[in-house]
Amino acid sequence: MTDVGIDAIEIRTGKLKLDLPNTFAPAKGEDPEKYTKGLGLNASSFPDTYEDIVTMGANAAHRLMEREGLGPEDIGRIDVATESSFDNSKPVSTYIAGCLEAVFDGEFSHANKGERKFACLAGTQSIDDAYNWIKAGRHRGRSALVIATDTALYARNDPGEATQGGGAVAMLISEEPDLVALSTEQGYGSADETDFLKPNQQFPSVDGKRSVQVYLSRMREALEDFESVAGRTHTEDFTYIPFHTPFPGMVRKAALFGYRHMIRDTQKEDELAGEIGRQPREEAFDDDGTFEEALSEYMDGLKRTDAYQEWYARVVDPTLSISREVGNWYTGSVHLARASALKTAAEEGRDLAGERLLVGSYGSGAQAEIHAETVQEGWTEKIEAMTVDEGIEKRYDLSYDEYERVHDVHNHDVETDADVEEFTAPEAEFVFDGWGRMGERKYRFVE
Amino acid sequence: MTDVGIDAIEIRTGKLKLDLPNTFAPAKGEDPEKYTKGLGLNASSFPDTYEDIVTMGANAAHRLMEREGLGPEDIGRIDVATESSFDNSKPVSTYIAGCLEAVFDGEFSHANKGERKFACLAGTQSIDDAYNWIKAGRHRGRSALVIATDTALYARNDPGEATQGGGAVAMLISEEPDLVALSTEQGYGSADETDFLKPNQQFPSVDGKRSVQVYLSRMREALEDFESVAGRTHTEDFTYIPFHTPFPGMVRKAALFGYRHMIRDTQKEDELAGEIGRQPREEAFDDDGTFEEALSEYMDGLKRTDAYQEWYARVVDPTLSISREVGNWYTGSVHLARASALKTAAEEGRDLAGERLLVGSYGSGAQAEIHAETVQEGWTEKIEAMTVDEGIEKRYDLSYDEYERVHDVHNHDVETDADVEEFTAPEAEFVFDGWGRMGERKYRFVE
Repeated sequence: MTDVGIDAIEIRTGKLKLDLPNTFAPAKGEDPEKYTKGLGLNASSFPDTYEDIVTMGANAAHRLMEREGLGPEDIGRIDVATESSFDNSKPVSTYIAGCLEAVFDGEFSHANKGERKFACLAGTQSIDDAYNWIKAGRHRGRSALVIATDTALYARNDPGEATQGGGAVAMLISEEPDLVALSTEQGYGSADETDFLKPNQQFPSVDGKRSVQVYLSRMREALEDFESVAGRTHTEDFTYIPFHTPFPGMVRKAALFGYRHMIRDTQKEDELAGEIGRQPREEAFDDDGTFEEALSEYMDGLKRTDAYQEWYARVVDPTLSISREVGNWYTGSVHLARASALKTAAEEGRDLAGERLLVGSYGSGAQAEIHAETVQEGWTEKIEAMTVDEGIEKRYDLSYDEYERVHDVHNHDVETDADVEEFTAPEAEFVFDGWGRMGERKYRFVE
Repeated sequence: MTDVGIDAIEIRTGKLKLDLPNTFAPAKGEDPEKYTKGLGLNASSFPDTYEDIVTMGANAAHRLMEREGLGPEDIGRIDVATESSFDNSKPVSTYIAGCLEAVFDGEFSHANKGERKFACLAGTQSIDDAYNWIKAGRHRGRSALVIATDTALYARNDPGEATQGGGAVAMLISEEPDLVALSTEQGYGSADETDFLKPNQQFPSVDGKRSVQVYLSRMREALEDFESVAGRTHTEDFTYIPFHTPFPGMVRKAALFGYRHMIRDTQKEDELAGEIGRQPREEAFDDDGTFEEALSEYMDGLKRTDAYQEWYARVVDPTLSISREVGNWYTGSVHLARASALKTAAEEGRDLAGERLLVGSYGSGAQAEIHAETVQEGWTEKIEAMTVDEGIEKRYDLSYDEYERVHDVHNHDVETDADVEEFTAPEAEFVFDGWGRMGERKYRFVE
């Protein structure tokens, strides 16, 4: 059977930037390194006053279809993954399709449109649905468009405020893909958790400490479940391991846990034993407390080994380059991580065709999914066609005062003056154009 | 390859009933026949004070799993379709899985949970995702649980108030199903429409007239798209044609359009020509107005023919029996229609195995999907195992004053007194149990 996977990706950042060490930290009276070293973030992306999840998603999809020479007739399915939806009934994909129909010849009348929600996980779930749709033989030769789009805003002065972000990732799922091929092997770790919620509210309620624990636990379960179908994983099986990245510091924790798991009962564990001992085994301890303590000590040691540091720098750190500059994009985040890694490899002139990635997605609430992807022959060209660097580079650098105003503009509960001016000039893009008579958001294309 | 489809269905109605001709009509000063004849509705189901989309979905799934002898280990996927969600991030499926884990041995750790939104269409989309997941070979021998659950409430005195409803339909999607098998053939009709919206609001804004037109147009496109892959449809190809049923009156319109389409250029059109003439062809008219007028006249005639009336009574009317008593359940509605038809046939002692249904789903915003299903050998037993009649029969019959109170209880924007008492006593079911510290809804099982 033919391969199915991601044929092309386009990334659209919000057009505004909040500089964390130079703008946010001074205003908060904080040490800039709290953000750059602690969280691992340099900046957040924000939508300008005329941007939202529809414009960012439509602009990413427009650019993707245009550069791939596709029209509506080539697309059989449009799924939007988001946790920033503004309508409880009408899916964002219909708005985005409406935008695209204004600039392409033809209509998406034949296309199955949908919307998925599961915190930051739904982008990966939508890729899976598209993969299954093609594998089931229902696609009639067409591709699927999966768009992960979010404005990840927190209430002002919430601890999460430094991890905000906003942008969209559009992905084309096709037979014989040029970028990465997926397989039927997947692992899940899923539980009913109260770590991060938005109960009838726009901004999240977060139990920060619990949220970190739940992320790590679900990832561990997903990895074990993945291994139950795909066989054991080892540190050298995968060229890169892109994780969901709420902030790079979270990935540093997850990567260490993953590495420990992968080297357990291997020659690598033996090699490191002289330096840091062997991994504590639960059965050797009388109580949980002593075991946890021994484990924590082992992890501290492992983190400092040359072996781990070399592996992390090579396999995980390259997945963080985009996130560091744009913050958390929720559903788009893990897809930024994959793109970051491939972009790094392309810039280094490496040939990855045939090499494998292990992708770890996560959504609060909570569920992790882990699967492997195989890089395809055409990957370099598709990665080099992305315009993400240009988008990041061209962002308007907000003052703190401007940041406060733009946060209010995007806060559904704040009635802003109509005269908050845009910070950038729209050009060849879809923009928000006010409300219609039924309270619907309207859009138009600015030449 | 093995057949995939719906193996079993369970239907859970809200435990309260609003009698439209005897309670609602007098309070509104309206003719009861406006509801019973015009809309085709006798009553609406409502959730009691301790019911919501989670309890109704969990209770339907609990009953379904129990009667099928299934545990969490047998379920690999739980998708909830709803447009009544109360959290913008955490999916309803996690709450439902949490409920089920309290009564079954084992956990759903390995199960992919999700949530889909597209007005009333998402239940069918979730069935498709589950079908594709099995066909793609990713299910590891497990079944999928699809739960369509909604509280279809309108603002008080909105024209839609008479078409309210609330309940859940749980469906098991499996290999070698006992009820109906699906195929890869589907038809879509999809467009960016502003007919029915909930922009950051619980209750819908509806353009009623536009909504009817959009329903009929998208259905026509979906039927044409279906015929482009499955070949022409004829009136005698399908034993029943279940449609999405916002209210039975809507289905009466859609059925007439469908019948006209199916008899066009057939012997049936010729047979009826003596009585009502042949169908007006657009190309024979100079302007749209005259054509529309001729078409309208033909439809009026067609509706009165014995041929149409016999077909409608046999193929469509049996799909409406449950909806007439419970109102609109949004995502569950078309699945009530399928269940109504099969239930009628079982009650008549018919053997449908091998016969076909044509299922027409619809969601505002807007998209229609049409596909065929083949009834399987084990259908009678699975249909007779449903407890829907008992649920409908046992509902508490609300006075108008009580209806007003329970509407307020379920209105997110109304602060109700904590002392609105429940109307029924919970028994062997999941109930809403108040809010947790992060604003999450909590649940417990009442023995």
